[in-house]
Amino acid sequence: MGKNIIADHAKWPRLEDEIFKISGECTKAIEKKGRDKVINSTLGTLIDDQGNIIAFDSVYETLKNMDKKDIASYGAIEGDKDFLSLLINKCFGPYKPDGHIRSIATAGGSGAVRHTFWSLLDEGDYVICPNWYWPAYQTMCEEYNREFLNYEFLDKNYEFNLKEFTKALDYALEKRDRVLCVFNSPANNPTGFTISDSMWDKILNIIDDRAVEGKFISILLDVAYIEFAGDGSQKKFFQKFGSLKENIITCIAYSMSKSYTAYGLRSGACIIVSSNEEIADSLFDSMKHSNRAIWSNITHAGMNILVDIEKDEKKKKSYADELEFYRVMLEKRARAFVENAKKVGLVSLPYFGGFFISIPCKNSKKVSEKLKEKDMYIVANKEGLRFALCAVSEEKCKISPRLIKEAIDEIN
Amino acid sequence: MGKNIIADHAKWPRLEDEIFKISGECTKAIEKKGRDKVINSTLGTLIDDQGNIIAFDSVYETLKNMDKKDIASYGAIEGDKDFLSLLINKCFGPYKPDGHIRSIATAGGSGAVRHTFWSLLDEGDYVICPNWYWPAYQTMCEEYNREFLNYEFLDKNYEFNLKEFTKALDYALEKRDRVLCVFNSPANNPTGFTISDSMWDKILNIIDDRAVEGKFISILLDVAYIEFAGDGSQKKFFQKFGSLKENIITCIAYSMSKSYTAYGLRSGACIIVSSNEEIADSLFDSMKHSNRAIWSNITHAGMNILVDIEKDEKKKKSYADELEFYRVMLEKRARAFVENAKKVGLVSLPYFGGFFISIPCKNSKKVSEKLKEKDMYIVANKEGLRFALCAVSEEKCKISPRLIKEAIDEIN
Repeated sequence: MGKNIIADHAKWPRLEDEIFKISGECTKAIEKKGRDKVINSTLGTLIDDQGNIIAFDSVYETLKNMDKKDIASYGAIEGDKDFLSLLINKCFGPYKPDGHIRSIATAGGSGAVRHTFWSLLDEGDYVICPNWYWPAYQTMCEEYNREFLNYEFLDKNYEFNLKEFTKALDYALEKRDRVLCVFNSPANNPTGFTISDSMWDKILNIIDDRAVEGKFISILLDVAYIEFAGDGSQKKFFQKFGSLKENIITCIAYSMSKSYTAYGLRSGACIIVSSNEEIADSLFDSMKHSNRAIWSNITHAGMNILVDIEKDEKKKKSYADELEFYRVMLEKRARAFVENAKKVGLVSLPYFGGFFISIPCKNSKKVSEKLKEKDMYIVANKEGLRFALCAVSEEKCKISPRLIKEAIDEIN
Repeated sequence: MGKNIIADHAKWPRLEDEIFKISGECTKAIEKKGRDKVINSTLGTLIDDQGNIIAFDSVYETLKNMDKKDIASYGAIEGDKDFLSLLINKCFGPYKPDGHIRSIATAGGSGAVRHTFWSLLDEGDYVICPNWYWPAYQTMCEEYNREFLNYEFLDKNYEFNLKEFTKALDYALEKRDRVLCVFNSPANNPTGFTISDSMWDKILNIIDDRAVEGKFISILLDVAYIEFAGDGSQKKFFQKFGSLKENIITCIAYSMSKSYTAYGLRSGACIIVSSNEEIADSLFDSMKHSNRAIWSNITHAGMNILVDIEKDEKKKKSYADELEFYRVMLEKRARAFVENAKKVGLVSLPYFGGFFISIPCKNSKKVSEKLKEKDMYIVANKEGLRFALCAVSEEKCKISPRLIKEAIDEIN
């Protein structure tokens, strides 16, 4: 379309919602053939073995018992005070970094990622990101004219690919003074991979080395799946981010979507960690300005739920129990998948936690099409297939690897 | 602060939250002196005579009875289909314009304003806006580097100031090819003013005249208070926007915050009206891209509430009754204020509906300070004082004009 009333920078083809499309096809297949016959690996929310979305009782009882006045009223623009401080504790657990920490309420984890891309980069600067990634990162880069640069996520030994990361970082810094490194870890979406603590030391060494005067390196930790990423020790790595140079900053996108099964409540926060107090404050001010300029304030009920649960030992215990129950459910499903993948010789990427496990393969879209013939509906990305442990029962996790292996062999 | 890791374009001083500050002072005064003794005109939500926020039963019963799965789940990125179509009907009533109409879910009215500023302007383009305005417009212009140009809202006869509007429009179009005109009407925040239907004809004539080839004029109708702006006929003006030239476009920011007393649920939509179908679709695509790049999707419960109420005749009736009851409450409060303003010789701007009425005065901040001594807490802006009919009981609306008149006389 030529010049018209829509500004050129804002013109985009209609967002293809591949996941929505295949999910719709799957629903139709289920209607036709029955739920038992179909494997639905298209969803990104926790689903029980009967195909229903899991919504924690501890969370939704808290909402149902909330005074309607507290749901109706506005929250503070930057987020309510209690929410912001309790969320910091909740995110870090006992591993709070020893730096200057600020938090700001955002519309889910998405909002936190958006703020980070916006405030820490100029147009033309690079966001560097592994080649297995959440597609919204790319949409955000497009929206604000940031460059999106991918590097090979894992090396041949299935370790984080430090060499490729370094190359991408150096490339970006050669061209520009600012760069932002996205890490979706622990429990990466879409792979389930977690960067190890010792690897973090190596990554941070390299970032420290490259952060010479005049260069600015931002680290975004998207920890959307962190509560499903282990029994607590997965949070230990946070301690490493407190005392980096002041031309390095860390932002943590913390989402209530998965951790509270509160996807639809659009609540989360961006946690800022800097060794320099003035910079931490200044970034907070920048993000508060963005809040006012975009959504004014976030869902009050979401903030209240976190506060109500964190402040009440009984509720906190119920919530922790539910979370643990479903974390273990995911673990069982993952074990069932991985064991059977080994049996049939299907290669899957190392899984440490979270909602997904990935299968690298060529012609992933064709494989995904082929799998529909076998009544499995699965999301394909550039590098392979994303299997939704969050959405498929343990029984079906057992039989899925064979179906996937067959489809890959038939296509490739 | 000099160059640091925060990009220059994103550096802002901490947003001064004047309203929050004075509201806090008022709370302290109430604690000390008792609610009866203090007039709290600092709030922007509907408050009953006992000082409690009003949260419609019809809305919050619907929420309390909602299946938790429907609260927990994600909505569609562009908004759920039913929500988008029912919201169009709800907004326009029987006065749907005869053009190509699209709607897209946004985080409250704020989100819709943001999308409009973003998609229809380039950096350096002008947003033109009356000098009595909602301050967030300015914050949004700052965020995205749009120029914010004010003109005198009303002429000497308290009519919309067509001459000053035209001057601002011509100024902007002389400098740039794109301009966006914000109209917060009917029931303007902060004045309560409504642009008349015959004045709309004049405004649209001028816009049509200035929309020569190569120039693009966007109209933003922020109708946040429309459901409290009359008994229905206030929506008639919408019909005028269906068949404008294709280099003119209309966006309507519809918010559930006030109309459903659902401030904290951050739900609303941007309704696009164009005479050209391709342009309407293209702007929808642009805004869908923005949704994904900012907040992903909006509060699912908010969308569900609108759908549940609109689809159920009984609920719809209960909701309509509540809305009418509180609209009339506001009318009574306004009448009490205006009648007593006349008695004491206090000039207030013409009020047609909504949450606020305004008093033009010099040294408004000093007057607001002086009023604290009289136990009245009121928000000052550049042009005068904003009296919150939404938050002050009818009895207190009666005595307020005298207090304000005295304070103005004492200061000026």
